[in-house]
Amino acid sequence: MSHPHPELDAPPPLTTDGLRIVALGGLGEIGRNMTVFEIAAAHGPNRLLVVDCGVLFPEEEQPGVDLILPDFDYIRGRLDDIEAIVLTHAHEDHIGAVPYLLRERADIPIVGSRLTLALVDAKLLEHRIRPVTRQVAEGDRMRFGPFDCEFFAVNHSIPDALAVALRTPAGLVLHTGDFKMDQLPLDGRLTDLGGFARLGAEGIDLLMSDSTNAEVGGFVTSERDIGPVIDDVFRTAEQRVIVACFASHIHRVQQVLDAAADSGRKVCFVGRSMVRNMGVATDLGYLRAPEGIMVEQKEIDDLPPEKVVLICTGSQGEPMSAMSRMANRDHQIRITRGDTVLLASSLIPGNENAVNRVINGLTRWGARVVHKGNALVHVSGHAPAGELLYVLNLTKPGNFLPIHGEWRHLRAHAALAELTGVPRDNVVIAEDGVVVDLVDGQVAITGAVPAGYVYVDGATVGEVTETSLKDRRILGEEGFISIVVAVDSTSGKIVARPEIHARGAGIVDEDFHDVVSRIQEVLEGAAADGINDVRQLRQLIRRTAGKWVSESYRRRPMIIPVVVEV
Amino acid sequence: MSHPHPELDAPPPLTTDGLRIVALGGLGEIGRNMTVFEIAAAHGPNRLLVVDCGVLFPEEEQPGVDLILPDFDYIRGRLDDIEAIVLTHAHEDHIGAVPYLLRERADIPIVGSRLTLALVDAKLLEHRIRPVTRQVAEGDRMRFGPFDCEFFAVNHSIPDALAVALRTPAGLVLHTGDFKMDQLPLDGRLTDLGGFARLGAEGIDLLMSDSTNAEVGGFVTSERDIGPVIDDVFRTAEQRVIVACFASHIHRVQQVLDAAADSGRKVCFVGRSMVRNMGVATDLGYLRAPEGIMVEQKEIDDLPPEKVVLICTGSQGEPMSAMSRMANRDHQIRITRGDTVLLASSLIPGNENAVNRVINGLTRWGARVVHKGNALVHVSGHAPAGELLYVLNLTKPGNFLPIHGEWRHLRAHAALAELTGVPRDNVVIAEDGVVVDLVDGQVAITGAVPAGYVYVDGATVGEVTETSLKDRRILGEEGFISIVVAVDSTSGKIVARPEIHARGAGIVDEDFHDVVSRIQEVLEGAAADGINDVRQLRQLIRRTAGKWVSESYRRRPMIIPVVVEV
Repeated sequence: MSHPHPELDAPPPLTTDGLRIVALGGLGEIGRNMTVFEIAAAHGPNRLLVVDCGVLFPEEEQPGVDLILPDFDYIRGRLDDIEAIVLTHAHEDHIGAVPYLLRERADIPIVGSRLTLALVDAKLLEHRIRPVTRQVAEGDRMRFGPFDCEFFAVNHSIPDALAVALRTPAGLVLHTGDFKMDQLPLDGRLTDLGGFARLGAEGIDLLMSDSTNAEVGGFVTSERDIGPVIDDVFRTAEQRVIVACFASHIHRVQQVLDAAADSGRKVCFVGRSMVRNMGVATDLGYLRAPEGIMVEQKEIDDLPPEKVVLICTGSQGEPMSAMSRMANRDHQIRITRGDTVLLASSLIPGNENAVNRVINGLTRWGARVVHKGNALVHVSGHAPAGELLYVLNLTKPGNFLPIHGEWRHLRAHAALAELTGVPRDNVVIAEDGVVVDLVDGQVAITGAVPAGYVYVDGATVGEVTETSLKDRRILGEEGFISIVVAVDSTSGKIVARPEIHARGAGIVDEDFHDVVSRIQEVLEGAAADGINDVRQLRQLIRRTAGKWVSESYRRRPMIIPVVVEV
Repeated sequence: MSHPHPELDAPPPLTTDGLRIVALGGLGEIGRNMTVFEIAAAHGPNRLLVVDCGVLFPEEEQPGVDLILPDFDYIRGRLDDIEAIVLTHAHEDHIGAVPYLLRERADIPIVGSRLTLALVDAKLLEHRIRPVTRQVAEGDRMRFGPFDCEFFAVNHSIPDALAVALRTPAGLVLHTGDFKMDQLPLDGRLTDLGGFARLGAEGIDLLMSDSTNAEVGGFVTSERDIGPVIDDVFRTAEQRVIVACFASHIHRVQQVLDAAADSGRKVCFVGRSMVRNMGVATDLGYLRAPEGIMVEQKEIDDLPPEKVVLICTGSQGEPMSAMSRMANRDHQIRITRGDTVLLASSLIPGNENAVNRVINGLTRWGARVVHKGNALVHVSGHAPAGELLYVLNLTKPGNFLPIHGEWRHLRAHAALAELTGVPRDNVVIAEDGVVVDLVDGQVAITGAVPAGYVYVDGATVGEVTETSLKDRRILGEEGFISIVVAVDSTSGKIVARPEIHARGAGIVDEDFHDVVSRIQEVLEGAAADGINDVRQLRQLIRRTAGKWVSESYRRRPMIIPVVVEV
């Protein structure tokens, strides 16, 4: 999805009474959420406000890639014009790209709630960046240049999440961030529907609302309902309990700590991100470990198995995680009959196979595995259709832009908006990079800018390109054959028998004998015809080898002819 | 999973009063179902009966592989001792490997129901094999050597499926094949619980029963309940209806034909396997197309869109299928607003991402997509726990071996068996290759034989090995760097500047300058030290390049050093 609307050109300049909205991520995909708001300034360059700056996790079409970032190209020449980055909450798909943007300008003010900033700080510390931060809370109203921002509490699967309303010369915009509407949340912090209603009465010109669960009917189950299920798992566990969940799901960890305390067990956090985040959450009072319950990993072996709880990440089957390694018996914690493993997470689409492998591995060694497929051990963090309708009806937006979702989710959310009375012409579905302008109370698509994937792989950002990935896909499916020929630099005559190296092609060395001879003949023929151009020789080799492998094996490995002139 | 129970040795010889059961596939995985039964003969070699001979479809850990076969090595030396291959039904995971086994001995008798044999015949014709077949039907009892077989009707997601009971000197075994217990099946053909009960009264020594849905509680929804949903989809479709389903799901296709007739639409089959199978099913009377309803693809364009139904495969998001290509606008049938696409299939685990991409692609172009996530358009073909309990209670088996499932399914089914009163010691969970002997009315694991994956890739069977796949995984994640150096064959001195070729490594050509110089230095140093052994030179190159790429990029591409002696 390098350029989603190929028919769209670059947009015209923004008019002075307009607000421009460009999502660099999160529209047409679940992840790397990032939206750029732009207002024309009276003097000087236009002013920018960024909401969220997250990463997308790669799927199998992005082999070897560690992370996918938004393409900052659209704002790269205007980094000094950014008034602030507002972070709605501390999930990776909303904050994960912040270190990469701050590498380009370190002093962009980061705006967020107390917990959000603490978790971002801890993350940036690992990147050796000390950000300039501005802490806000629900109810706060604060200006960043021409952007007059008001913050609202929203309930989500991480504490302290915010929605943000922007009052601009072009109108009032409400960006919900990610949210759901648990009416009995564990921390008592409700999504501020009263605030949304007040904005609706004031007149919301544009609502941008979380679409992740727009296809799902009804309402979320309360997080509160998971507590008894966890208690029951603990009550019936014969020996150790090993819990895997997201390192950001502080409420779920709290539930596990409470269940452990009730059953007289000790708890140990396993893994860097879990230890780091729970440290931050404890320091700030978001997590309260019952007195004396926490132990270090090295103390675990001295405890009887029925007194042990381990909390780790890896609930998505990440191959290098503790959980996957336990499933493969490749971890110092050896799963045995009697262990109970609780996968207390949603299953992020794309991870089904990996999680299935973990469940089968653990089951094979005799563990009882409790997961969302057989028990109510997780509820989604995103509002389903029933709740989205409440927000649409309370905010009565003049225009609607569904955000945070794939096409199927954006379309489903758009349909909900139309059902609540938003006129069809005032509902826009935009993909990443599509330019949406709000002028005179009406949204319109006015163009598109590049918003392709930027790949992080190892230490590099952006060096792995679509071409590299295409090569990887071919190599990964078919392997390669490399044919090395040394030729005399003047005559073009080959001076040694061609050498073949193949990997992943599934062809044994002896089988190459024939084709080596054939290539040698072809090159000798070429030399006799006076052909000594390296490019031509390479082409002859590629053609000869390609024909042979296709006819003999019906396969298409990558063929790399190398001609060394000596 | 090359050898599932590493602690198990080859089994002792089979005793004359015993029955040996070895699954070469289907135990510990969903697919490549194949079980070998063995009886000691009075004179001469032991006699074998094979039940099913299917393929497994590769997942992402088997990149580039087309199909996965059972390893025939266990029976390769004894092909003449096989009395018959009994095929329970015509799904690919039960018949797909038959052509590969018949390549090794073409005249093994193939036993199956009328439809099963017809579909196998059509398939073998494409492999230019004419099999020796023996048609059977429910109620038939027939001997194949010492194996006295009785066949029972079972209800499944393809017509004419059978269970098979084997009466052997060691006891009576019931193998259910795949089944469910729809009590109002479309063709009126029920799973023969009465027959199972009669066997139970006679005394079943070993029950082998389908575990696919053992983790799912309750009972299947009747196929009959899908009809009204399909009717509703047709009633509300604005323009074309495009249905994707399995090419073997004759009942589902019948429902679509009926709905098309009711709404005055014409129908066209798209794709080779759909056209072939529906031809066979029509010829045999399993499918009845209403008069005048079928049209050729070329006639479609002359019909108004609201009169058109297309039926194709690709419901699993297979990349080269018509459905995926339509989603990518890479097919002559161009999806537009107004089209309705019906994915009338289950979602086979592992295909979630591919199907999600198809749904998003179709949605993006404006199609309404109806799928199992938003409508009751498919029911499973496998009995869930509620139904499995009926079978266990009616058959009252002395011993139980759960078949057809991953570990999680086998364990869940084993737990059900224990709940119905099968003694724990008489329930065995075996993986592929594990040898289970039934002697004196008691099953026991007595050893294991190789039962690894055999990969079909292009024209080759078994040439792509685990090593090739490991290479592919590395190449697919990291790419490779090949460094070619020409050296004087006697002095070991390099005679031209090293050449570097990289693909998929995400490193641009200019970046190689430094490392080429470094390698050159290292090799010159080696030559000065009198090192001219090619293996040593290769190692020096690999080490130098590997260190550079790891330090500069934190990556680990495959490094291929090539030293050409001239």
